[in-house]
Amino acid sequence: MDESPGPAALQVALAYYQAWTSKDIDLAMRHLADDVVCDAPAGRIDGVHAYRQFLGPFAQLLLGTELLAAFGDQTKAVLVYDTRTPPVASAPGAECLTVRNGKIVHNRFIFDRLPFEAARRAAD
Amino acid sequence: MDESPGPAALQVALAYYQAWTSKDIDLAMRHLADDVVCDAPAGRIDGVHAYRQFLGPFAQLLLGTELLAAFGDQTKAVLVYDTRTPPVASAPGAECLTVRNGKIVHNRFIFDRLPFEAARRAAD
Repeated sequence: MDESPGPAALQVALAYYQAWTSKDIDLAMRHLADDVVCDAPAGRIDGVHAYRQFLGPFAQLLLGTELLAAFGDQTKAVLVYDTRTPPVASAPGAECLTVRNGKIVHNRFIFDRLPFEAARRAAD
Repeated sequence: MDESPGPAALQVALAYYQAWTSKDIDLAMRHLADDVVCDAPAGRIDGVHAYRQFLGPFAQLLLGTELLAAFGDQTKAVLVYDTRTPPVASAPGAECLTVRNGKIVHNRFIFDRLPFEAARRAAD
């Protein structure tokens, strides 16, 4: 029985994931709290505006994604997936999302920056 | 009702995690199939011997770990955690493990290599 005030975290996480991986950043951002905090590899991202600047450009580069695992409970969800972009053929990521009142309030975003850094250096 | 031949994936994953993060690599490796395949940031690791060479030295460096999320079903589990080592104060990781007959047969291991690379360059 679901007695929480909002949908389970996994449901919100999957809606957010489907939106951003289909490049609908407007829709993806609607699943985030305005004061969302994201701990990303390069450091902390505060608020939905900064989050959009972080994720939007990457989403636009996507050539494909594959969801490898998705689990969660009422407050927390974890997504593991692979991404394909022009600079990096396979760049897996993991997001550990905390959801409150139907909105993502925190995300621990994990991926390897090294291949992106290498691609940038090669392009320079 | 658990009708699988072995324990659920999450149970195996947590036993493996507790072992390696407490630096008991012998015990951790006992949760892996001999022909385990690990897709790690630097590439594919084949077999338990190579896996040990990959994880053992890192485990020995650990100053602390914090488990942030652990979910799973009968065949798949995901662990998200933070690690603290002398070169990198906070290096989160995610492992997406597939379990068959009570042993880990595949792992998608995700972490950011960049801070470790930066620490190595600084030390040189």
